Amino acid sequence: MLTPNLTVNEQGHLCVSGVDCTELAKAYQTPLYVMDEAVIRTSCQGYHAVLQQEYDSRGMICYASKAFSCKEIYRIIHSEGLGADVVSGGELYTALQAGLPAEKIVFHGNSKTFDELTFAVSENVGRIVADHITELAMLNEIAAAQNKTVSVMLRIKPGIDAHTHDFIQTGKIDSKFGFALETGEAMAAVQACGTFSNLKLVGLHCHIGSQIFETEPFAEAARVMLRFMDTIRTECGMILPELNLGGGPGIKYVESDDPRSFSEIMREILKAVRSACDTYQYPQPFLLFEPGRSIVGASGLTLYRVAAVKQIPNVRTYVLVDGGMCDNPRYALYQSEYEVLCANRADQPKDTTVTLGGKCCESGDLIGEGMSLQTVGPGDYIAVLATGAYNYSMSSNYNRNPRPSVIMVKDGTAREIIRRETYADLVKNDL
Amino acid sequence: MLTPNLTVNEQGHLCVSGVDCTELAKAYQTPLYVMDEAVIRTSCQGYHAVLQQEYDSRGMICYASKAFSCKEIYRIIHSEGLGADVVSGGELYTALQAGLPAEKIVFHGNSKTFDELTFAVSENVGRIVADHITELAMLNEIAAAQNKTVSVMLRIKPGIDAHTHDFIQTGKIDSKFGFALETGEAMAAVQACGTFSNLKLVGLHCHIGSQIFETEPFAEAARVMLRFMDTIRTECGMILPELNLGGGPGIKYVESDDPRSFSEIMREILKAVRSACDTYQYPQPFLLFEPGRSIVGASGLTLYRVAAVKQIPNVRTYVLVDGGMCDNPRYALYQSEYEVLCANRADQPKDTTVTLGGKCCESGDLIGEGMSLQTVGPGDYIAVLATGAYNYSMSSNYNRNPRPSVIMVKDGTAREIIRRETYADLVKNDL
Repeated sequence: MLTPNLTVNEQGHLCVSGVDCTELAKAYQTPLYVMDEAVIRTSCQGYHAVLQQEYDSRGMICYASKAFSCKEIYRIIHSEGLGADVVSGGELYTALQAGLPAEKIVFHGNSKTFDELTFAVSENVGRIVADHITELAMLNEIAAAQNKTVSVMLRIKPGIDAHTHDFIQTGKIDSKFGFALETGEAMAAVQACGTFSNLKLVGLHCHIGSQIFETEPFAEAARVMLRFMDTIRTECGMILPELNLGGGPGIKYVESDDPRSFSEIMREILKAVRSACDTYQYPQPFLLFEPGRSIVGASGLTLYRVAAVKQIPNVRTYVLVDGGMCDNPRYALYQSEYEVLCANRADQPKDTTVTLGGKCCESGDLIGEGMSLQTVGPGDYIAVLATGAYNYSMSSNYNRNPRPSVIMVKDGTAREIIRRETYADLVKNDL
Repeated sequence: MLTPNLTVNEQGHLCVSGVDCTELAKAYQTPLYVMDEAVIRTSCQGYHAVLQQEYDSRGMICYASKAFSCKEIYRIIHSEGLGADVVSGGELYTALQAGLPAEKIVFHGNSKTFDELTFAVSENVGRIVADHITELAMLNEIAAAQNKTVSVMLRIKPGIDAHTHDFIQTGKIDSKFGFALETGEAMAAVQACGTFSNLKLVGLHCHIGSQIFETEPFAEAARVMLRFMDTIRTECGMILPELNLGGGPGIKYVESDDPRSFSEIMREILKAVRSACDTYQYPQPFLLFEPGRSIVGASGLTLYRVAAVKQIPNVRTYVLVDGGMCDNPRYALYQSEYEVLCANRADQPKDTTVTLGGKCCESGDLIGEGMSLQTVGPGDYIAVLATGAYNYSMSSNYNRNPRPSVIMVKDGTAREIIRRETYADLVKNDL
């Protein structure tokens, strides 16, 4: 099994923390997202503990909620002491509705709108991470109109090339995000902040990519950022109190994935920060980290019901299920790999190789190809593992399929945290 | 201009059938989908006319509503005499809500659920296109329980390799859709239909792909299907009264696209059908065609507001807008190309080459790269052309961005046909 919370009961059924997935599928229908609250809380606590033990709690873990945003997840991460990174007015609204204090929210985005920034300033969001000069000017205007001073961080491109999928590299100079270091753009932005009387520059932010397995890119980013903070001190006479190192730690999607543990990554980052602070004789900053996928990814799985199996001689076997790119577009977008198993025959050997096809009317609507699976037939349930991040959040109503419900499992019981969409929901805004 | 309904007024603003897009953007906010009802109606009429003139109206054009599904579009195509192809219970529900008669609906899909088929049978949907033997058996059971006889077509893989994007080729044997001809699977399905007492096999269906520019693949598909219908007559003594040739005609997305006109494609298909019927001495079948993209694609454009322009020296220029892969995932999914222009400076020369970056927190969130555009700055409006198909229908709430509204332009006035989602809509199913 990919994660230790997954077990098989005496009926041969897959269980999530002891809850039978086959029973869940029957009770709540499929497709169904199932998440394990214990896994989420353990991840939160893991990050938290390292920050506490090795950095005197001088920092904040902010859950990057684009990975999975709904009211309940903000309640959970809040109860674990985390803040949240939001990237839109919609995420901000959801977090506030769930009772997350605004001061624990960091607002990101390369193209925030006037309305979104106005909303954030009105709600006194803790930190706004500015992406470009135009935004700084607009934010200053909004803050002035509300007679407020807004705490701002600047998103910097540290020029780190983390080894991951091309689509999700973000630290390089060729990125739509942030201010480049090497062109002088970042320094110009720092200096510009001094001219905006309603903005207070509290620190810098960087994000080097997603689904990163190694510790070194993070440590290197920390060193690059502290070197720049030292340069700012020299050139502008300003000591920045905060450093936000973004997110990016990867999770195990398939057996061959071998990511460093989150604590190991955190320890290496903290070591790099302390060491760079020593080198530059710089006061250790208040640190922010923004893990998203690594908080929720491994906690989730998706259950589908098999509609049919198509064996095409000498070509391949398609297992057709009742969901698809509408609830999980990651294979269509990135050719992402997943482990799958038959939830109601989890004790049987994986003796076939299949292509998991979705129900959308599009040939590219596949959940994966070349997947090892038990021999299955119509009516069997398929579990696609590690779908807690970027599945529900990327889901659509393509083909007017209603979005599935999300079930949270805790202490042997299940509760619905997002209701399944109805047909009536689909037409509610149709005139 | 890509299509003749697009003009530039004396203020230099882009107009859709005379309606100023800059005014629309200001009145309805951005992002905004704008569609032109005249373009949709003209496409419907074009298909209809050829069928009428060259085949004595012995057929039905069924709009493939996965391209764009909402209540108003079903009303429009119904008033033009078209039926609809639906691919889910949600599309079926929407079409029925809009008043489209059930007998004019064709229900497709490679993985229809028991509930969807039950819904379709209850509503007396005109034709159900079965994709595999498991579905035939399930459908027979549902029809028997309702004491009905259901008209069924079989989806056949004709083995045609239409020259288009890999992801949207569907006629080949390696497809999740339908019954293969060359393996004998299709003939076995025809024979199986005889054993299901509540199913009536009325004809065959095939669909060879999407965004196809040539006429020959369609004509060849018609010949292959009629040859098979002739074989069925010989082997099973059965004359099938209907033939559904699916959809697929391509549209002009960029200037270099040079698709055959829809009427030309229709004429070639009809010629091939008549000629094959002569060859096999087969009675000319009732024909169904299912254009989707070619009905709505060219009718639509998307308006965005520019948040910022980032010039990265020696790399590229990013124009950052207030939408992105959440309202148009086609570049992220297929690297689809689009023409763009500045809606409020449409009279100026396109003197720059840009990457259009969206607002989602993901590097791959681009609308396109290497796009010719007027020089723009913050506050300008960008129009992305030919977004009428597979944009709204594929939109998501990724990053919890609300989905834009859809405006329909007709006779110089604009009306909202889908309301913009609110923040409250985003959390309505959150518990």
